Amino acid sequence: MKTLWHNCHVATMAGGRYSIIEDAAILSAGTLLEWVGPLAEAPAVEGAAVVDLAGAWVTPGLIDCHTHSVFGGNRSGEFEQRLHGVSYAEIAAAGGGIASTVRATRAATEDELFASARRRLISLMREGVTTVEIKSGYGLDLPNERKLLQVIRRLGEVLPISVRATCLAAHALPPEYAGRADDYIAHLCDVMLPALAAEGLVDAVDGFCEYLAFSPAQIEKVFIKAQALGLPVKLHAEQLSSLGGSSLAARYQALSADHLEFMTDTDARAMAAAGTVAVLLPGAFYFLRETQLPPLDALRQQGVAIAIASDLNPGTSPVLSLRLMLNMACTLFRMTPEEALAGVTLNAAKALGLGHSHGSLEAGKVADFIAWQIDRPADLAYYLGGDLSKRIVRHGVELSNWEHLDG
Amino acid sequence: MKTLWHNCHVATMAGGRYSIIEDAAILSAGTLLEWVGPLAEAPAVEGAAVVDLAGAWVTPGLIDCHTHSVFGGNRSGEFEQRLHGVSYAEIAAAGGGIASTVRATRAATEDELFASARRRLISLMREGVTTVEIKSGYGLDLPNERKLLQVIRRLGEVLPISVRATCLAAHALPPEYAGRADDYIAHLCDVMLPALAAEGLVDAVDGFCEYLAFSPAQIEKVFIKAQALGLPVKLHAEQLSSLGGSSLAARYQALSADHLEFMTDTDARAMAAAGTVAVLLPGAFYFLRETQLPPLDALRQQGVAIAIASDLNPGTSPVLSLRLMLNMACTLFRMTPEEALAGVTLNAAKALGLGHSHGSLEAGKVADFIAWQIDRPADLAYYLGGDLSKRIVRHGVELSNWEHLDG
Ligand SMILES: [Zn+2]
Ligand SMILES: [Zn+2]
Repeated sequence: MKTLWHNCHVATMAGGRYSIIEDAAILSAGTLLEWVGPLAEAPAVEGAAVVDLAGAWVTPGLIDCHTHSVFGGNRSGEFEQRLHGVSYAEIAAAGGGIASTVRATRAATEDELFASARRRLISLMREGVTTVEIKSGYGLDLPNERKLLQVIRRLGEVLPISVRATCLAAHALPPEYAGRADDYIAHLCDVMLPALAAEGLVDAVDGFCEYLAFSPAQIEKVFIKAQALGLPVKLHAEQLSSLGGSSLAARYQALSADHLEFMTDTDARAMAAAGTVAVLLPGAFYFLRETQLPPLDALRQQGVAIAIASDLNPGTSPVLSLRLMLNMACTLFRMTPEEALAGVTLNAAKALGLGHSHGSLEAGKVADFIAWQIDRPADLAYYLGGDLSKRIVRHGVELSNWEHLDG
Repeated sequence: MKTLWHNCHVATMAGGRYSIIEDAAILSAGTLLEWVGPLAEAPAVEGAAVVDLAGAWVTPGLIDCHTHSVFGGNRSGEFEQRLHGVSYAEIAAAGGGIASTVRATRAATEDELFASARRRLISLMREGVTTVEIKSGYGLDLPNERKLLQVIRRLGEVLPISVRATCLAAHALPPEYAGRADDYIAHLCDVMLPALAAEGLVDAVDGFCEYLAFSPAQIEKVFIKAQALGLPVKLHAEQLSSLGGSSLAARYQALSADHLEFMTDTDARAMAAAGTVAVLLPGAFYFLRETQLPPLDALRQQGVAIAIASDLNPGTSPVLSLRLMLNMACTLFRMTPEEALAGVTLNAAKALGLGHSHGSLEAGKVADFIAWQIDRPADLAYYLGGDLSKRIVRHGVELSNWEHLDG
């Protein structure tokens, strides 16, 4: 089944950068793109369906390449406490913070986790997200990490969205290993990761390299095991301090290093050489009221690909809108709207190892795209909130009546 | 027709402050509230319809008390230029800034303005806004200000939302009066305001008191005329500098003074004495990357009622989500979620002169309320973006299938 989509302009992101075709057309064949170009050069295809996009601007389907969408509970109570003057330390001493999410996640059934995560993904999808990465990391033992990863797989089977599963068992030290971080890392490498990988639940392996989580030496053990299992790695690095995690990630050809506010020029050079994507997370920057900006100029100068993601999580980025992250990337990080759009398409695909098939509108890639009723692509970053009119095409088929899945 | 809404908790905002009733019920009679209280004390009403709200948290319908929702064009092009390093001064010299919105608004037909504003209001309504204030101020001559105010009236007739119309002809100096600000103010007072008021198009009169707009002396002339016409006043004051506009507004018993980043303790005392509401606009603060915070402590100490609004406008706050403003009021201004919620209900009603009928859930007020599927009221401020599940009740009737109005 072929479809010619016409009467549109297209931000193709072809050739590895922001690029557009005005007065364009798109020919899809089955789930893939067969041709994208100026309408005047469109191939004649007998029997193709023809869809008039009414002057819309078409972008690749958006890709949220860093989320923690599956968790129990929420942390609005802590948000409220902090605004009443309770300190982080007091909240942590009372069992709050990530420990409370781990407790709530362990206590939740798979169905409960699935139901709440489904609602969150539908919020993202309503704004044009067609591919999402979801990390585990609130289970922190084999049965609970498995439970999370199974929920993540199930989300991708039930919802019309492509889901990549990342094992983030190296997210925080579980309470039963208090004071024994090396033992936990050993258990993770010897038992958890091999089991979860063997079950086909893991597309990539991530960790949190920070003074309040795991050291570079501990993370390196996880990377070595991931490599032995044939799994690509990613890393939360340089969010609150400079530990060289992003250089470590580059040494292991990581798909991405994420956060990066405190990264150095040396880190940027290492990432550029390794092709490691810089994933910036303006929602967490905003929510935590950080002041150290990620070094955009160093990343640009070194030619590091820059992606933007929601970091959707209950503690530091309760963000249900990837489009809002485009605005924050521009307003807070001074990225251009073009850079921001590349950050949730082209470069987000690279950050998931999907650069060959997703992230741009070019012949041979999947036919995932959004037709937006906007005046120009910059509108996507300009408007704060609001439900911009759009049509969503995934795998060559326009989605309709899918929101009943919000049951 | 009476309806008993039960199986809910209610943030009533009764008694002039944030207040809640758990395990509550609401009895509406026609368009009004007849009773709100604990379920156990609910009156028996024969023949009343009964609606199960499934454990929802109910708040008053949200009120966006400061918007400029009707305008031609948008300014995403300028947003993009600025991020490419073009200065405000260069943009203004090229005819950009508010001048470009005035040109686009004057060039637009009433139907075009209506269609684009309707889409914006629907974005607000989808998030639970049941009352909105809209200012004119991009026409800046009698026919074009009339056109805007007529569109504003029509929006209130067509959409299921209560609309208050504010005449902001004293927004900026129109190009045909360049260098003759006093003459424009005289024309505004002698011709425009009396005509628009006589046509029943104006609920309140507003101005922009700032070194790049109008002086306190010029604004005072507008206030004197408004008072003579029996119209309440409001003022954009102390956004970029301290000119004492908020004290001036208080002297004229203004409903509100808005923005207020540079207000003084003296201003706060004057506003408290006059009952003038402080309307804070975190979207503009965020979008303009301001650093001077409004003086929350002074406002609290003086007992000034604090409202929060979107300031929806194309140049400095392209905000289509009032709920996002709750988060920004908390995150950027360090308001508590309770203060923020009062700011878009109770105090927003006061800022529109609707304190007697709107803004809280108490017997005798209008039955405008939202039943949110959330765990606690703070969730409204906590989540960034996303479409929280909700039921919207306006004038005692649940809205359904109203979004086709998005045609
Ligand atoms: Zn993360
Ligand atoms: Zn304004």
